[in-house]
Amino acid sequence: MKKLTIKDIAKEFNVSISTVSKALNDSYEISEGTKAKIQKYAKENNYKPNFNALSLKNRSTKTIGVIIPTMLNYFFAQVFKGIEKTALENGYKVITCISNQSFDKEVEIIEMLSNGSIDGFLLSMAKETEIKNDFNHFKESIENGTPIVMFDRVAQSISCDKIITDDFNSATTTVEFLYKKGHKRIAFISTMSDYKIGKQRFLGYKKGLEKMGLPFDESLVLNINERDYKKYGKEVKPFIKSIDLDAVMTTGESVAVSTMKALRKSGKKIPKDVAVIAFSNGILSRHSSPKMTTISQHGEQMGSKATQILIDKLKNKNTDVVTEVITTDIVIRDSTR
Amino acid sequence: MKKLTIKDIAKEFNVSISTVSKALNDSYEISEGTKAKIQKYAKENNYKPNFNALSLKNRSTKTIGVIIPTMLNYFFAQVFKGIEKTALENGYKVITCISNQSFDKEVEIIEMLSNGSIDGFLLSMAKETEIKNDFNHFKESIENGTPIVMFDRVAQSISCDKIITDDFNSATTTVEFLYKKGHKRIAFISTMSDYKIGKQRFLGYKKGLEKMGLPFDESLVLNINERDYKKYGKEVKPFIKSIDLDAVMTTGESVAVSTMKALRKSGKKIPKDVAVIAFSNGILSRHSSPKMTTISQHGEQMGSKATQILIDKLKNKNTDVVTEVITTDIVIRDSTR
Repeated sequence: MKKLTIKDIAKEFNVSISTVSKALNDSYEISEGTKAKIQKYAKENNYKPNFNALSLKNRSTKTIGVIIPTMLNYFFAQVFKGIEKTALENGYKVITCISNQSFDKEVEIIEMLSNGSIDGFLLSMAKETEIKNDFNHFKESIENGTPIVMFDRVAQSISCDKIITDDFNSATTTVEFLYKKGHKRIAFISTMSDYKIGKQRFLGYKKGLEKMGLPFDESLVLNINERDYKKYGKEVKPFIKSIDLDAVMTTGESVAVSTMKALRKSGKKIPKDVAVIAFSNGILSRHSSPKMTTISQHGEQMGSKATQILIDKLKNKNTDVVTEVITTDIVIRDSTR
Repeated sequence: MKKLTIKDIAKEFNVSISTVSKALNDSYEISEGTKAKIQKYAKENNYKPNFNALSLKNRSTKTIGVIIPTMLNYFFAQVFKGIEKTALENGYKVITCISNQSFDKEVEIIEMLSNGSIDGFLLSMAKETEIKNDFNHFKESIENGTPIVMFDRVAQSISCDKIITDDFNSATTTVEFLYKKGHKRIAFISTMSDYKIGKQRFLGYKKGLEKMGLPFDESLVLNINERDYKKYGKEVKPFIKSIDLDAVMTTGESVAVSTMKALRKSGKKIPKDVAVIAFSNGILSRHSSPKMTTISQHGEQMGSKATQILIDKLKNKNTDVVTEVITTDIVIRDSTR
């Protein structure tokens, strides 16, 4: 018999998965009437959030469930490489799903895999989950005996192991690096202002300016909300033209490529007139012309570390919760002096 | 959760097990009212006599399982976009897993998802599966009532719907295109000689030469077995130097970028001295300098078509098996005359 899932309950009442999740967790956001109705139904139909995980938790599958928010991302591909390597070394298998930045998909994947298929999760949160700020599915999974280790895009309020990039300090260090090379008009272009990591990078940028005694100038900041990288240029071009700048740091490499193009078109030489530096260290930075200086995030190390922490937890039933911070390095190529 | 048994249903309605059994089997011995009541309850509580895929095949989850062989691939990302779009339009959800080119992972994913989570599969085969030539997991899935539609990397011997790129004719057409632009020494660089699609492209290349009356020259063919795109250059550089050529066609865009670099380093101008054209139409071809002429595979269309075929099959229980061929287009940019 197919286990009654949160999805089935949502369908039954014609409400969202999030509503059911909140109702079952007695959230104040849901009306008492709805809560009572959903809780009654769940009870009557023997709904158990992760019953199988619970009953099976002493039965090891030697498999790790990995949830990655997006396919086309070199950073996550690097993390994945580290995960696969360390899992293999420890005799674990890996099963990987893509949430495609969707909250519903994330919930479904967790339900599906918790069904006795895996011992624990390694995951980076979907964008929608971060915006919704609804982490009940993570909480349930952990409470029901399926531990989670989060990497990169983590839910602060959830008590679990986390591996994060030192986004704030990395951005600060980058401003220092540029300042020491003689740059004073440093622009910040972000395609991640919705994300916590994007906010940290922005705050780190501001802190860097402050440390170097440079004024913060709002006209030097561009936040791009466009999701299609092919359209970044449309926002970058007028921005580049409108301001006087001698360096640009960006939150990712696609937008850095668009920025370099826009600079060239407006007659600026890279790195002579304007330096460019980007978070990430993927294929584009090596193939761009000039080759891009990047703030390298050590994705493979992050994946490897996350896997090791999860496996240690699975083996020792260790209940300590740690947050590891992976520092970044500036990989100097040709887009900076 | 404890599996709902026939005994539980009998208890619920205070009737005998025999009555429940007869009711579920639509026996004339039981009144229509009782049958309706018992069947409704069994359905609502997902009662199934035997827990296997076969018995679940009439229960729709409105979810499609997608298995993609590799994360960092713009073509598959395009296919995925088409899948998501068409699934959404038809009220279907999508759950996506990555086989990472592993036979074992592919088998595990199919087992896991066939467990009542999805109605059917859209998949592109893992490299290892293609090499092993072991397709029993596909056969089992189909025989047990979970249909499969394969795209791009398909198992010829499996009787299921398939959507493929017209690799052979595309390669032939590309040679014709280059010949008409005045090229006579056309090299072929492949990173896919292990794959059926790589073989088709090579055979199509040979056919194109034959059609144009050009001799086939083995020294103009380079097969790269290296998997790390960062190392393509090491094999491409000496190859480029060793031969006299005026055009190169490649099986992918990463290797085309490496080829353009090697050509520039050896003092050749693109496209004046040597034209470059690559299968695929991803981010690199738009960002490379010069921008790359590509053989565009219409991934989104492929994904959309595959999804439509699967959904039609799920709805109509259509047993016909089709193979759709998606043609390619040459997208002319700056790396060809």
